[in-house]
Amino acid sequence: MQPFALDERLARDSSLVIKLGLCELRLIEDRRWPWLVLVPQRPGISEVFELTPLDQAVLTFEQNLVASGLKTLTHATKINVAAIGNVVRQLHVHVIARFEGDPNWPGPVWGHGAAEAYTDDERREIKKKLLEAIHS
Amino acid sequence: MQPFALDERLARDSSLVIKLGLCELRLIEDRRWPWLVLVPQRPGISEVFELTPLDQAVLTFEQNLVASGLKTLTHATKINVAAIGNVVRQLHVHVIARFEGDPNWPGPVWGHGAAEAYTDDERREIKKKLLEAIHS
Repeated sequence: MQPFALDERLARDSSLVIKLGLCELRLIEDRRWPWLVLVPQRPGISEVFELTPLDQAVLTFEQNLVASGLKTLTHATKINVAAIGNVVRQLHVHVIARFEGDPNWPGPVWGHGAAEAYTDDERREIKKKLLEAIHS
Repeated sequence: MQPFALDERLARDSSLVIKLGLCELRLIEDRRWPWLVLVPQRPGISEVFELTPLDQAVLTFEQNLVASGLKTLTHATKINVAAIGNVVRQLHVHVIARFEGDPNWPGPVWGHGAAEAYTDDERREIKKKLLEAIHS
């Protein structure tokens, strides 16, 4: 089987925060919401249930580590966690901090309006704080 | 702590398929998409990471059992799995069969148009087939 290679659209729309045991943790380039994706570094996988049972368990651990860290960091009203993949088929799990009154609240973020880029300082700062929140 | 009681809106919008080890598996009353929700029978929980580690692992197992069964049954293009909860805060995980060309494809199902009720025969039939797919 071919080695894992990140989907081109995911690569374009996000940047690496850190490589965890299973997943690449990436920040979506859209400052409207603190929005992360976890991408299991396994080739040819579209659905969570296609992962081995061990990888499924590790994905659950990494999802909850990241979701919990994002909640601690942002004090979000609600964390949204979702594996959708109707457009990009490479398995990726969204972890998004949502706030009452944020763009499209309480509706979903996908397909809503146009992404707004971070400044370099903002992007660096949110990644630094994320790593602190996840490691604490 | 108070015992588990199903959220009123979830109760109104869906009907029981089966009680699994952790979750109530329920069918959303909207025939536009084969759409299930898993509701962990634990009181006072809004986020997956608030569950105990064991419950998190069981939820993962039940999610993948149901998602895999739904894929086998429907031959869906993609299964969408999501814990959103911006409106109904009781933890519930959506498991939805999506097809190219279905209503709002490839966008998300939440907040799109008005639900369409099943006939009694349709509802009975899909639940029966779901149980067969999950148990096989």
